[in-house]
Amino acid sequence: MTRDRSALDALLDAADADAYCIEAGSTDSNQLYLSGFDAPDPFFTAYTGDDLAVLVSGLEYGRARKESHADTVARLSTYDYADRAAEEGRAAALTAVYADFLADLGVESALVPERFPLGVADGLREHGVSVAVDHDDTVETARAVKTEEELDAVRRATEANEAAMAAAEELIAAADVADDGTLVLAGEGDDGGPTPLTSERVAEEIEVTLLRHGCALDETIVACGADAADPHDRGSGPLDAGESIIVDIFPREKASKYHSDMTRTFSKGEPSDTVAEWFALTHEALDAALEAVEPGATGAEVHAAVCDVYEDAGHPTLRSDPDTETGFIHSTGHGVGLDVHEQPGLNPRGGELEAGQVITVEPGLYDPAVGGVRIEDIVIVTEDGYENLTRDYPVELVVE
Amino acid sequence: MTRDRSALDALLDAADADAYCIEAGSTDSNQLYLSGFDAPDPFFTAYTGDDLAVLVSGLEYGRARKESHADTVARLSTYDYADRAAEEGRAAALTAVYADFLADLGVESALVPERFPLGVADGLREHGVSVAVDHDDTVETARAVKTEEELDAVRRATEANEAAMAAAEELIAAADVADDGTLVLAGEGDDGGPTPLTSERVAEEIEVTLLRHGCALDETIVACGADAADPHDRGSGPLDAGESIIVDIFPREKASKYHSDMTRTFSKGEPSDTVAEWFALTHEALDAALEAVEPGATGAEVHAAVCDVYEDAGHPTLRSDPDTETGFIHSTGHGVGLDVHEQPGLNPRGGELEAGQVITVEPGLYDPAVGGVRIEDIVIVTEDGYENLTRDYPVELVVE
Repeated sequence: MTRDRSALDALLDAADADAYCIEAGSTDSNQLYLSGFDAPDPFFTAYTGDDLAVLVSGLEYGRARKESHADTVARLSTYDYADRAAEEGRAAALTAVYADFLADLGVESALVPERFPLGVADGLREHGVSVAVDHDDTVETARAVKTEEELDAVRRATEANEAAMAAAEELIAAADVADDGTLVLAGEGDDGGPTPLTSERVAEEIEVTLLRHGCALDETIVACGADAADPHDRGSGPLDAGESIIVDIFPREKASKYHSDMTRTFSKGEPSDTVAEWFALTHEALDAALEAVEPGATGAEVHAAVCDVYEDAGHPTLRSDPDTETGFIHSTGHGVGLDVHEQPGLNPRGGELEAGQVITVEPGLYDPAVGGVRIEDIVIVTEDGYENLTRDYPVELVVE
Repeated sequence: MTRDRSALDALLDAADADAYCIEAGSTDSNQLYLSGFDAPDPFFTAYTGDDLAVLVSGLEYGRARKESHADTVARLSTYDYADRAAEEGRAAALTAVYADFLADLGVESALVPERFPLGVADGLREHGVSVAVDHDDTVETARAVKTEEELDAVRRATEANEAAMAAAEELIAAADVADDGTLVLAGEGDDGGPTPLTSERVAEEIEVTLLRHGCALDETIVACGADAADPHDRGSGPLDAGESIIVDIFPREKASKYHSDMTRTFSKGEPSDTVAEWFALTHEALDAALEAVEPGATGAEVHAAVCDVYEDAGHPTLRSDPDTETGFIHSTGHGVGLDVHEQPGLNPRGGELEAGQVITVEPGLYDPAVGGVRIEDIVIVTEDGYENLTRDYPVELVVE
């Protein structure tokens, strides 16, 4: 994928620094974005404005030359890493090698991301390299605005996500309600009788569907009743009829590494009046937030639109009570890309939205005594508003 | 799971530091190990010897009190994070809050891991906290020796891994050979005819099998021919008869987060003499390495045993030529636990093995003109040698 490095060029100019450096494996999305190289173990990337250079182990050397965006690919053995590691230990040898690599590139001062490893930074400083933190999150900020190619990857991940959501919903629809109110699947028990339909069983169906659609994922949330009242509880055990079941799926397309993210809340059969009321209100909050999304609007404004709806209906939010553990207890949304949570934030500090950003909008209400309700769509900010990628998936609570 | 913190106690004593601190999400295995708390976004953990304290967002507060190992759970709102972030920005507010949290714990000097984020470290230093890097990787080192509970988790992940390997092997066995030598699956094409058997199709079968066994995984290697000559190439496209196919699977048990790791190399039908010879030699290298595994032996000695076998047969290794891109071009193995690659290393710098460590032994030979061969077992170092968890899975090249 093409990368726009103009923000880094401007940063290096403004800060009068010689290079922007990252030391991490490609699970660090800034590293993957800047280097274009997917490798599990940490490697060193230096961008000087003229040259994008990576320093990798011998094991990754051939692949880095073929696959990375780098103009220059160097390997540890060029700097006698093995002998130095035998003498000084791994960490000291690595920073010495990095310092030599930077010297070869003519780099005496480096800007690095907030999460650059302290051990490497202190080591480079001991070798006379000036290392300063880029407090503006320049690479994350650049990542927030997507190219068409990146948007297409998010679209594909969203299609897979909708297929997985449909698989989850169909499983809940297919379940029977046992005498104790729990959901069961007929004929799936070891003895040919019914077996409980659990959070884990639904998550497995979701994840298998995602794999069949070229996506992977780390975690899925299928949380029922009191579990659903904690937005980060992944859920476990049997599902219950008439309780809210939050299904939150955030896959990553394997080929591109781009994510999607969506949530629906279901109830098998009629829920309590409270859950039904929360659902309608949350749908209203979703619409209010979407209404506010356009270039130039701030993430803070979109978040405020949700807080307004909830507070007007008498629910606590983190705006009305920073310590509340019930009500609307998270932010309204976040950017989605190489990370499932990235810039921009739809929260009290959220800045101006720009066309090409991908954001989730996910209002929700939570209380252990009631359960949880959350509805999450994923949208692209466009020149004249937004494109809702999840618009075709119904927002319907009751599954018969 | 129970955690042995005696090494940290000794470190804090020896370094005369007030606390060991980690700032990371639970994808950082040191964080997960020390805090016992599984949360996606970074949070702060401080271990003082008497007190294990975590500082989390309001969203994680309830779950942290229930699920973490912490004696003390604090939340950002106690330190007025929201107001400070509105005033000073996210990063500055966070370090200010961390500094106040440490002050409340009576911590003036902190030891941190190598990969502690520089932005947080520099921020804490500006607030007068002394921050030094633990160059001994104390938490990683403690993680290397497993409890029975941890070993059981690795055993379960290994069982799932063997099931997935069997699914891959069965798919290759079920394939036919087309006229052009590629593998095809009869009756699976859209028109009811044959469809190519690709790396991606085998990987999908592996990953679905792992999900059905309670495991997840990030990547699977199914690499054939020239792809297999690069140990980190994940493989793509149609598989060929008579070529080596490396299948390397490294799942993580979802419930415990512990990994397993194993590799087999298959050939559909008779391979070239060279591949057959490499396979026999690699099996010999595996046996030589396993023979060397016992408490007190070093990782360097186990690695040397493999280099001896290969070099005696005339193959280059990184020991005989640090720049070689063919032959035996990686280390002999690594620890496995919360990370799929962790301590101890079976490499030229590998230290003494200890009972309770879990290691892979994975010799291999690579050359783009031939392909690649790798065989990987996972073993527990025991008081009197080792227990091979993968011993029941045959080491056989040819799949008919």
